[in-house]
Amino acid sequence: MRIKTLAKSLEEADLDAYLVTREPNIIYYAGTISGGILIVSSECDPVLLVSRLDLSIAQDQAEGYEIRSYTKQTMMEQITSVLNELHLEKIGFDELSLGQYRELGEKLGDVELVEKPELVWEMRKVKDAKEQELMRKAGELSDIGMEAIRSCLKAGIREHEVAAEAAYAMLKEGAEDHAFPFIVASGPRSAYPHAGVSDRKIGRGDFVKIDLGATYRGYRSDNTRTFVVGSPTEKQRAIYETVLEANKAALPEIRRGAAGIDVDRIARDVIEKAGYGDAFIHGLGHGVGLEVHEPPSLSKRSEDVLQVGNVVSNEPGIYLKGFGGVRIEDTVLVTPSGPERLTKFDRDLDAMRV
Amino acid sequence: MRIKTLAKSLEEADLDAYLVTREPNIIYYAGTISGGILIVSSECDPVLLVSRLDLSIAQDQAEGYEIRSYTKQTMMEQITSVLNELHLEKIGFDELSLGQYRELGEKLGDVELVEKPELVWEMRKVKDAKEQELMRKAGELSDIGMEAIRSCLKAGIREHEVAAEAAYAMLKEGAEDHAFPFIVASGPRSAYPHAGVSDRKIGRGDFVKIDLGATYRGYRSDNTRTFVVGSPTEKQRAIYETVLEANKAALPEIRRGAAGIDVDRIARDVIEKAGYGDAFIHGLGHGVGLEVHEPPSLSKRSEDVLQVGNVVSNEPGIYLKGFGGVRIEDTVLVTPSGPERLTKFDRDLDAMRV
Repeated sequence: MRIKTLAKSLEEADLDAYLVTREPNIIYYAGTISGGILIVSSECDPVLLVSRLDLSIAQDQAEGYEIRSYTKQTMMEQITSVLNELHLEKIGFDELSLGQYRELGEKLGDVELVEKPELVWEMRKVKDAKEQELMRKAGELSDIGMEAIRSCLKAGIREHEVAAEAAYAMLKEGAEDHAFPFIVASGPRSAYPHAGVSDRKIGRGDFVKIDLGATYRGYRSDNTRTFVVGSPTEKQRAIYETVLEANKAALPEIRRGAAGIDVDRIARDVIEKAGYGDAFIHGLGHGVGLEVHEPPSLSKRSEDVLQVGNVVSNEPGIYLKGFGGVRIEDTVLVTPSGPERLTKFDRDLDAMRV
Repeated sequence: MRIKTLAKSLEEADLDAYLVTREPNIIYYAGTISGGILIVSSECDPVLLVSRLDLSIAQDQAEGYEIRSYTKQTMMEQITSVLNELHLEKIGFDELSLGQYRELGEKLGDVELVEKPELVWEMRKVKDAKEQELMRKAGELSDIGMEAIRSCLKAGIREHEVAAEAAYAMLKEGAEDHAFPFIVASGPRSAYPHAGVSDRKIGRGDFVKIDLGATYRGYRSDNTRTFVVGSPTEKQRAIYETVLEANKAALPEIRRGAAGIDVDRIARDVIEKAGYGDAFIHGLGHGVGLEVHEPPSLSKRSEDVLQVGNVVSNEPGIYLKGFGGVRIEDTVLVTPSGPERLTKFDRDLDAMRV
């Protein structure tokens, strides 16, 4: 049971108890979308405090947990009352707002409160077999969304109409939501790494950069492809091929024992050599799981070393203001035998022409 | 210009400067989805600091702003360097994480940092004419989503397939996203106020509670209807009619000068008289705008008094564990001449039978 592993890790971290407050962490440990606060200690069984509103879903989903409900007014009192039953000097937590931290600090008196999200991340960043299955499915669903976009893309269609096709296909096939708001960035808008969706009419000759993901039983995928409407110009082709080469060069390096900084460097070298180093303005990748941005990271300043069970994005990009941009991104699982792409949509330029 | 109003309000709040950090607040003041940190002071023009990644979208969207870019490593340095150019004793902010608050506090030395989100909320909770137009459109789009659901709902369809139809219809007609993750809660799941979307197959006789909203140019709507597959039982009818009566009783009270606590009371009285008081386990409503949960609130503990330009949800509900639940929700604008429903979908039980 995951929660027991967390409880066991408290001693080594010199903590007497731990508060889990972030929603994805509640899903991870208690298996419920109720949110709330999970109180963990080696002294007693975990207690899940949830809003009165979410009591019944928590009771049905969080099997084996002691569950108590609160109202906004009583929440802090109830956390304190559970904690005061224990003998505590130092409590860790994943996240508290400034207001919560102050209020709890006052109520708990001499007890020390320490922000320690890494205790949870150490566990979450290594996906177990069941999680890997859900992430494979999330990856497949994002490919289905991308295929729906390839089928509809043409000059004259608007960005929000394109997003509609992907949303429909992913939900229809089993996603419960998108993993994050769609990016449909066409023409000059493709030069924005984060562009959202507008009502721009897509034109002949445009790059159309699509960044989408599906959520399947809480688990997410992250998938970017860049299409070209019509025939690419020489410059478009040069940029596209550079990003693709960077993506392909990094992929085999996404393996057990590789340093995040080195994997980033391999992709970055390709782009720098092609003369576009200044236009690759973000890290190569980030972890993906119950959230779309998690540890570990692949970047210039990453201190992470990849382990089997990590899932990361591989997403080099080139962005030229006023001209357009290209990003090609897969979600990749580190397996004992090397990288496994969870998103498998075509990447070759010929397949991206619509 | 909104930002000037904020700058002017600083003196009265006894603040020398203000940091806007929340994304919807950056949209509200600077008109860009770039995120970042907006530094406001009466001494100088506002400065927008954005991630290097989002510099070019900020430059294109945030007209008239001085924009500087940062990397993760330099962000705090740059905030401090802008602030140190001014002569400050007390700085307000809308939200900072615990880590940001501590780091900034250290870097700024004697300067006092005060959490004052209410300065922004005082402005945001009163929607101007342009915002009202966008919210009308967001309301219309949510009705289009609901109509798509009515057209597809039948025994045998799965919850995620139902969500697919609404997502498609809203995005196709101009929404850039849903306003929040769909709730499609059928059968016993309708008793969960927040239920998400599952792969449950909808059955004959089920309540199907749909909670959805559209986002249009940043502005959101919030719209709940409860359908019945087939003919309602006597108990289903009794619950439905009670919730509908509560919704209708509250509506005319959503007007200038009404206290949030009183509007809630009117709906609550209807439900209590019918014997379901314990099953109405949340407040009657909340503000809606750039976010789906904002001030003002309509609830037992609300201290708000409604003003012209407020937009609130009106959403009584009854939830019976194991049996099912009903919620009927509209997004309502307070106009000089009374409430205006921005969501206009049918509410009568006969229209909800599929």
